[in-house]
Amino acid sequence: MNLDVRTDQVVQELETLAAFSDVPAPAVSRIVFTETDRKARAWLWGLCSEAALIVRADAVGNTFARWEGSAPELPAVGSGSHIDAIPHSGRYDGTVGVLGALEAIRALQRAGFRPRRSIELLLFTSEEPTRFGIGCLGSRLLSGALDPAGAADLRDGNGATLDQARAAARFSGSLASVALPRDHYHAFVELHIEQGPLLECECVPMGIVTAIAAPATLRIDIEGEGGHAGAVLMPYRCDAFLTAAEVALAVEAAAKGSGAIDTVGTVGVCEIFPGAVNSIPSRVRMLVDVRDIDLARRDRVLEAIQRRAMAIAAGRLAGLCTEILNADAPAEASPLVVDALRRASAEQGLRYRTMVSRAYHDSLFMARIARTGMLFIPCRDGVSHRPDEYAAPWDIENGVRVLAAALARLAA
Amino acid sequence: MNLDVRTDQVVQELETLAAFSDVPAPAVSRIVFTETDRKARAWLWGLCSEAALIVRADAVGNTFARWEGSAPELPAVGSGSHIDAIPHSGRYDGTVGVLGALEAIRALQRAGFRPRRSIELLLFTSEEPTRFGIGCLGSRLLSGALDPAGAADLRDGNGATLDQARAAARFSGSLASVALPRDHYHAFVELHIEQGPLLECECVPMGIVTAIAAPATLRIDIEGEGGHAGAVLMPYRCDAFLTAAEVALAVEAAAKGSGAIDTVGTVGVCEIFPGAVNSIPSRVRMLVDVRDIDLARRDRVLEAIQRRAMAIAAGRLAGLCTEILNADAPAEASPLVVDALRRASAEQGLRYRTMVSRAYHDSLFMARIARTGMLFIPCRDGVSHRPDEYAAPWDIENGVRVLAAALARLAA
Repeated sequence: MNLDVRTDQVVQELETLAAFSDVPAPAVSRIVFTETDRKARAWLWGLCSEAALIVRADAVGNTFARWEGSAPELPAVGSGSHIDAIPHSGRYDGTVGVLGALEAIRALQRAGFRPRRSIELLLFTSEEPTRFGIGCLGSRLLSGALDPAGAADLRDGNGATLDQARAAARFSGSLASVALPRDHYHAFVELHIEQGPLLECECVPMGIVTAIAAPATLRIDIEGEGGHAGAVLMPYRCDAFLTAAEVALAVEAAAKGSGAIDTVGTVGVCEIFPGAVNSIPSRVRMLVDVRDIDLARRDRVLEAIQRRAMAIAAGRLAGLCTEILNADAPAEASPLVVDALRRASAEQGLRYRTMVSRAYHDSLFMARIARTGMLFIPCRDGVSHRPDEYAAPWDIENGVRVLAAALARLAA
Repeated sequence: MNLDVRTDQVVQELETLAAFSDVPAPAVSRIVFTETDRKARAWLWGLCSEAALIVRADAVGNTFARWEGSAPELPAVGSGSHIDAIPHSGRYDGTVGVLGALEAIRALQRAGFRPRRSIELLLFTSEEPTRFGIGCLGSRLLSGALDPAGAADLRDGNGATLDQARAAARFSGSLASVALPRDHYHAFVELHIEQGPLLECECVPMGIVTAIAAPATLRIDIEGEGGHAGAVLMPYRCDAFLTAAEVALAVEAAAKGSGAIDTVGTVGVCEIFPGAVNSIPSRVRMLVDVRDIDLARRDRVLEAIQRRAMAIAAGRLAGLCTEILNADAPAEASPLVVDALRRASAEQGLRYRTMVSRAYHDSLFMARIARTGMLFIPCRDGVSHRPDEYAAPWDIENGVRVLAAALARLAA
């Protein structure tokens, strides 16, 4: 198929979307269900309507923009990603998969293509765990991976429940209605920046994902003894933050010592209470992120971290408890989708390599209910979740081109 | 002198003052120049007026309540402390010195005592560094230890200047007008809870302070490299928080290794940027508090921490810079005041011990312009800066009794 992909327009739309942000450019912060998120969604809804797509949202705000096929009774082909952005991040993570899929649909429309199966653009709610502490909120509910009753109990840092937050953003209805049956979609493809350096290093324009790494989140609460920083002598202290410092270094050691380069462990959040210069920290809460492409190895590392953390706390006479907030299984890509992406790349004359995704994606959960695959494009220096995150226009164009060709194959 | 100290009333007033708080009881948070602080000050102003004291405030909100002596032209005798409270602290730190001095004045009035020198109750603004990052703001300005031009540039965490904050709390006028000349006061005495376990352990009801330890605050900024917690493999990371964790442990080691039990080092604040579970920390800011009763030893420890922090950062390829925010010299108590306190204790039939103060007090700065001393009473388990901070009514009564007798001697 000869595709007219309007890259300038996509780049312009990415820029417009980036301006829906709670921090000054080039940084982006777009937290789910905030006023900023609501405005960005409204703008996107408008773009979808302009493309003659029929738009609907479910109770948690997952949004579906449908291009009706000639056989609308058949399961549709889905493509999409998320638009929420963690604090002080960049403009390409997630958004390329949403605006790229929209442009793929528009390019197919311009080419006069008429799909047999309907094609749906999906926008997932809260892929990032920023607000409710759990990632892929929308796709978890969609795929049945998260119990709706438990989801309703989720609270943000200010104590607002998920129900209150979605009501404020005008999404109503039962969370139980969000789940879709298995094979509701014929197939699902997500276009995304790589968030790693591989494609750029190897000068390959396209990555076809064969598996998504298995992420886990561990919460560690440490209870020490506070007091005045001047008055309590060193031997009588039980400083929660010093315990946390040792635990953070133990996380690093456990990840590095797993025996495989693919294990990563990160302490991205460490909150100190009371957090005053002249007070000994009495309590600390840390969030630990551990990932691997091998489930058993990741779980061994997770267990090693917990064991070591308990020993560190015992040595310092501090209290410590850990809770695994999520520990998802890795996902395999569907051969049907991988094959469609291979053929689409070949058709568009673009080289690709197969690879694993180390980052967390909505596709991890979509794989539970649909044949799922992912398409990666390079990003500069492998940088993501930072203001200097960048994907070149030609790489975005290649991604849209292959995605469009693959959607056409899957919907034919 | 036979003193009628109304302990029940003081305890009741401490309870009332504790209710001016931004967090639920038993915790207290009262940050300078907030609405809560303003209300507490207004209530206290009323109590002073009821005691027939003449109240005035200076440009930074330091408040002076004067009991006019028979020779009002002579330098007055001062006594007082602070009422601001760090987040989630207790009800006795500072407040015992303010409400205790008020009761000492009332008890002297009831006893029919007529001072020759005027007696002034002082309330110092922002002894705690919570809002503007520097402790003893009011007493520093009062004693000329802080340049008024530099003080005007201080900003709180939200970017508000000291000038904006004090204007909002209705304190106006030039900061340069706050400084008082040397010997403006004949003497100054501060009553305070010990904030340490010594008096309680030794069953001594009273501590007469002979020296105040020298505190220093060090700010450490660490610059690493952010990125996606899933995508950047461990060998390619430069995690600012792991550098911070090592530095925190180095602070502990340096304080413990100083060769003296009197050295303490604390990391009470550690802020991580961007602070998301799935982002590698790119920047960290820590505040380190180091104290000692020996100035040279404290400065050696401070230097060792900075040297070690640089080496740790170099080893992890992170950027690190340190800034000493304050490094005050220790203060010696005035023999005149120590002697008055000794005699007052003997007169009231109360045992005492001499001791050093490890905590930071407004007296450290008052000692620069006046003969200064401090009186400590026990606090339970040596606990301070925590909601369970506690001083027993009988200990408060003893403190008020000895303070009143000492003020009478100094003002006679």
